[in-house]
Amino acid sequence: MKKEENFSEWYNEIVELANLSDKRYPVKGMNVWTPYGWKIMLYIDSFLRKELDATDHGEVCFPLLIPETEFQKEKEHIKGFDTEVYWVTHAGTNPLDIRLLLRPTSETAMYPIFALWIRSHTDLPLKTYQIVNTFRYETKMTRAFIRVREIHFFESHTCHVDEADAQRQVEEDFEILEKVMKPLCLPYLLLKRTDWDKFPGAFYTVGVDTVLPDGRSLQLGSIHHYRENFSKPFDIKYEDLDGNLKHVHQTTFGMSERLVGAVVGVHGDDKGLVLPPDIAPFQVVVIPILAKGRVEEVTAHARALRDRLSEAGIRVKLDERDERPGSKFYDWEIKGVPLRLEIGSRDIKEGVVTYARRDSGAKGTVMASEVVPESKRLLDEIANDLLGKARKTMSDSIETVDNLGSLPKKILRFGWCGSKDCGREFETRTELKLLGTPYQTEEFVGKCIVCGKDTETIVYAARAM
Amino acid sequence: MKKEENFSEWYNEIVELANLSDKRYPVKGMNVWTPYGWKIMLYIDSFLRKELDATDHGEVCFPLLIPETEFQKEKEHIKGFDTEVYWVTHAGTNPLDIRLLLRPTSETAMYPIFALWIRSHTDLPLKTYQIVNTFRYETKMTRAFIRVREIHFFESHTCHVDEADAQRQVEEDFEILEKVMKPLCLPYLLLKRTDWDKFPGAFYTVGVDTVLPDGRSLQLGSIHHYRENFSKPFDIKYEDLDGNLKHVHQTTFGMSERLVGAVVGVHGDDKGLVLPPDIAPFQVVVIPILAKGRVEEVTAHARALRDRLSEAGIRVKLDERDERPGSKFYDWEIKGVPLRLEIGSRDIKEGVVTYARRDSGAKGTVMASEVVPESKRLLDEIANDLLGKARKTMSDSIETVDNLGSLPKKILRFGWCGSKDCGREFETRTELKLLGTPYQTEEFVGKCIVCGKDTETIVYAARAM
Repeated sequence: MKKEENFSEWYNEIVELANLSDKRYPVKGMNVWTPYGWKIMLYIDSFLRKELDATDHGEVCFPLLIPETEFQKEKEHIKGFDTEVYWVTHAGTNPLDIRLLLRPTSETAMYPIFALWIRSHTDLPLKTYQIVNTFRYETKMTRAFIRVREIHFFESHTCHVDEADAQRQVEEDFEILEKVMKPLCLPYLLLKRTDWDKFPGAFYTVGVDTVLPDGRSLQLGSIHHYRENFSKPFDIKYEDLDGNLKHVHQTTFGMSERLVGAVVGVHGDDKGLVLPPDIAPFQVVVIPILAKGRVEEVTAHARALRDRLSEAGIRVKLDERDERPGSKFYDWEIKGVPLRLEIGSRDIKEGVVTYARRDSGAKGTVMASEVVPESKRLLDEIANDLLGKARKTMSDSIETVDNLGSLPKKILRFGWCGSKDCGREFETRTELKLLGTPYQTEEFVGKCIVCGKDTETIVYAARAM
Repeated sequence: MKKEENFSEWYNEIVELANLSDKRYPVKGMNVWTPYGWKIMLYIDSFLRKELDATDHGEVCFPLLIPETEFQKEKEHIKGFDTEVYWVTHAGTNPLDIRLLLRPTSETAMYPIFALWIRSHTDLPLKTYQIVNTFRYETKMTRAFIRVREIHFFESHTCHVDEADAQRQVEEDFEILEKVMKPLCLPYLLLKRTDWDKFPGAFYTVGVDTVLPDGRSLQLGSIHHYRENFSKPFDIKYEDLDGNLKHVHQTTFGMSERLVGAVVGVHGDDKGLVLPPDIAPFQVVVIPILAKGRVEEVTAHARALRDRLSEAGIRVKLDERDERPGSKFYDWEIKGVPLRLEIGSRDIKEGVVTYARRDSGAKGTVMASEVVPESKRLLDEIANDLLGKARKTMSDSIETVDNLGSLPKKILRFGWCGSKDCGREFETRTELKLLGTPYQTEEFVGKCIVCGKDTETIVYAARAM
């Protein structure tokens, strides 16, 4: 399995070998989360929860099924999801009076209730989120974590007194995003989507994109400002200080299990997964190197080592299977465990523990007495190095171009006059997707790559996953 | 609201006043989990996770949608759920080739995959669980947490080499159950269901029942031994040590959001919820008692108190709203916060903090310097007393009877010859439900309440919620 030669095959093979997900479930695009894959997802969820709770978002859980009548209230929104929803038409043996759809996203489930919860400006801002599975009938080829039909999903939904307060929420979302991406060691771009690519019903959409090793972009999440686009059809109003009724301004922020896909794709190598320590089910694996006559001594030391690490809050696995050490190394490399510790009779005699880093392959020894702080230090180093390496890969994958001749297979960055005509023409001619303009303006003076008009606007484009 | 006069109305009112759930969602029986209610549920989930992880169950997440073809494999099972399932028949604008149902429980989603995961005796036991929402089209009157159509649900599924090992799993499930019910302060009965009331497809079913104040039983969960009833139709086989292929023996254990309903119903009183400390979103509420000229001093003390409690790991809320203390007391009593601390200028002068227990209403003072250990002690006492009180209520609600004349509105305990005829006749004549025979045999010598035959078998019966 060679990541560089065929990323797509490599990805599928790694997911299977590391046993992150089982795609043999008898409904296409609906995969089984195995214990190892699900644990990683739950750690990611826990970082989301931590940051959202710390910013006073209340966690809720809205029903999965949405009546067709609610779904139809916002016109752009229906148009955007019409061909993608699953319909429940019968319960038991009876047809339903009103068809129900499985949430593709929860605006139309939540907003009729927000209209009941919000009465006055004192109820604002209303900040909520939920972590649920959503459903989209994908017609493109499915791929574990990246394009599936049942999607593990986080979505925050907020309501504000006015556009400016909603804008402040968007800024807070960027801070939350940064804190959540850190333990995943994932770099990303914040790109304001084009008007024809924004979320159905949004005023504007900022995409959170990362870059895969084959030069394709992968959207991990998005942050939307809705203005009053949903609060009007759903009639979400509040009484302001002067007794006037006003519609709320709304935002949403969503991320999906694609985060797991990005971790696999960005950090993995030809030996298997490489997991960032903060989301690794096991951060350290301990392998006893048994020699004849020393089995009991080594086993006792290995167990004591496991216990010390575990008591220090490190997630550790002691592999006592009856296998050769080399075969154990191989298995845990596939699983991406960040740090391997080996202990044999020579190590014991010398008072050391041998380590091997999963990311760089670097090996060395640490004093046995220092194994807890040294493991922590190594795990921190691994996280730092993973992020540094991924950042470099991402910036190497971005190339500024100024004409449409022989475009490299990379994320492209170029001038754009901003017109839909030029944007669409670019997309048609290159079969690439405009990802949007940088949310943090990047200085630029140049010409539109299509019409040649002078412009100070930079836009990004790529083959999108 | 009087719990004793009309339990049913009281329950609905408390759920609404404490804002645990919003039933105004436009699909009947599908309620919105509010932040306060959901937090309680998540704490309960965390206790389940802790015990299941500690007993080597792997957490998985299987797809929601089950193909009709898989669902039909076990005949008793379909018959049991046929009238209760929601059917997805369309995706986008296209009808599906094979209809999909929303999981009412996950046997038929998991077992085709277990057949792939299990090859040899070394793959056994396979112990898995998931925490998901399930769907049942209830036709009876719905009630928050107790009878809903989207049900938050825990389910463990295990596979074993033989019946005896599966039986050991059932025993382990009882230990897990005991550890999970402790933080909820809920007593329960373990009753082996009658043959005509066991889970569709089970070899036997043990119901976990608690008793509501109106004398009705409430089933909180169940533990099933399936023998080979599912492994045969789903062809889950393993190769034993001698190379023979054998079907696995299976068990399941399930509990639902009814646990929240039981907490409300068993512990609550006329003033509102009474939450066991371990699952209370706020274990302590601090109310500053402000007096003119002392506002800053009292506020500073109250905040310092909040910080000390919080640093000690106690979940604490400081209520600084611009309301009278009495109105704050009232609000937090409805919410069921176990312990209230008040701090005013007199308390500060005397170096004390005033407390009030939610469960008993008992008040007193503790030394300000001792407030952390004293709060912990009081919370422990509250938990103990809640369980003690609930146990007494439950045992007072059970009455042994020996004839069918004028039965008390309680859980009844009586002799039964064990025949289906007598059981059914009892149920028809009394309109009560046989809950089953005690899992831990209770000594008894008497006569069958229906036919008068001598018997040593005790059975329980009640109006079931």
